[in-house]
Amino acid sequence: MSRLEEKTISSEPIFSGKIITLQVDEVELPNGRTSKREIVKHPGAVAILPLTNDNNIVMVEQFRKPLERTIVEIPAGKLEKGEEPRETAIRELEEETGYECDSLEWLISFYTSPGFADEIVHLYIAKGLKKKKDAATLDEDEFVNLLEISLDEAIQLIKEQKIYDAKTVYAVTYLQLQEAMKK
Amino acid sequence: MSRLEEKTISSEPIFSGKIITLQVDEVELPNGRTSKREIVKHPGAVAILPLTNDNNIVMVEQFRKPLERTIVEIPAGKLEKGEEPRETAIRELEEETGYECDSLEWLISFYTSPGFADEIVHLYIAKGLKKKKDAATLDEDEFVNLLEISLDEAIQLIKEQKIYDAKTVYAVTYLQLQEAMKK
Repeated sequence: MSRLEEKTISSEPIFSGKIITLQVDEVELPNGRTSKREIVKHPGAVAILPLTNDNNIVMVEQFRKPLERTIVEIPAGKLEKGEEPRETAIRELEEETGYECDSLEWLISFYTSPGFADEIVHLYIAKGLKKKKDAATLDEDEFVNLLEISLDEAIQLIKEQKIYDAKTVYAVTYLQLQEAMKK
Repeated sequence: MSRLEEKTISSEPIFSGKIITLQVDEVELPNGRTSKREIVKHPGAVAILPLTNDNNIVMVEQFRKPLERTIVEIPAGKLEKGEEPRETAIRELEEETGYECDSLEWLISFYTSPGFADEIVHLYIAKGLKKKKDAATLDEDEFVNLLEISLDEAIQLIKEQKIYDAKTVYAVTYLQLQEAMKK
């Protein structure tokens, strides 16, 4: 197996925003040559797969400016500074859906775009949902429509490209696998 | 259902690099207020789930500078200008693994980080693999180790957080689902 590591020679900060920062690193490659790496730093996020007592999935429809369209996703949100992913999951579930849950189980964590970004998503499954508030209490620049759909409806929304993002596609496939293994 | 769209008031270009560009858009929210959106534009990518004739998965180990570590992934690569995703998949499979394939089937496409980036990954499954070249012919700044592993080994690598990215975790779960549905 060959050596793969890239050493940082220098790092140029380009942008520091509300959510992401961007830097360009000059690196020494395994063969001694140099190259540039464009790197987006992100605080990390959680996503929650909320299952109602009648086995529906709670999802949110929201406009995603980078895509210039609305898509349907499982609830998710960025980690606040100093916040444990589990706390973020409980907070975001309540903020985006108005639900609190009896059980919250970690399923998996993954990097979304390891080629250019360090964003990690921690995925939890939430069960024993209870409506705490009638309406969601969103961030002031956040607008969502709530949906409660069956697994079959979720699979159909993937076909229609209304569900169109990695974490939600993974979550739906995870549920399909659980169902298939029951049989 | 409430209106969710955000209208662009202005768009400020921040950075234009080899791979990504960054812009900050000022938007009008559904309630008439304004907010800023940090948006990374990416050319899009393909990923390939290559299955050998004895049902092993061909993966690549590579250093990911944003994560400062090596991870194990299915082969993937960026779309070149004017290239159809299918062509990219055939090219990247050969470049990264030395394999060509008899059949290449599209499985799914998904956005990796719709909150801040427009990157889309088109995922294909490649079967009927034949070694075309002894060695991979990588880009000049690309270094990978090749692995051929079973589905069970892939599941183990997920547990060990050596497989740690969305597209690969999805691909492994997809295969698990296919296996479970056979039974």
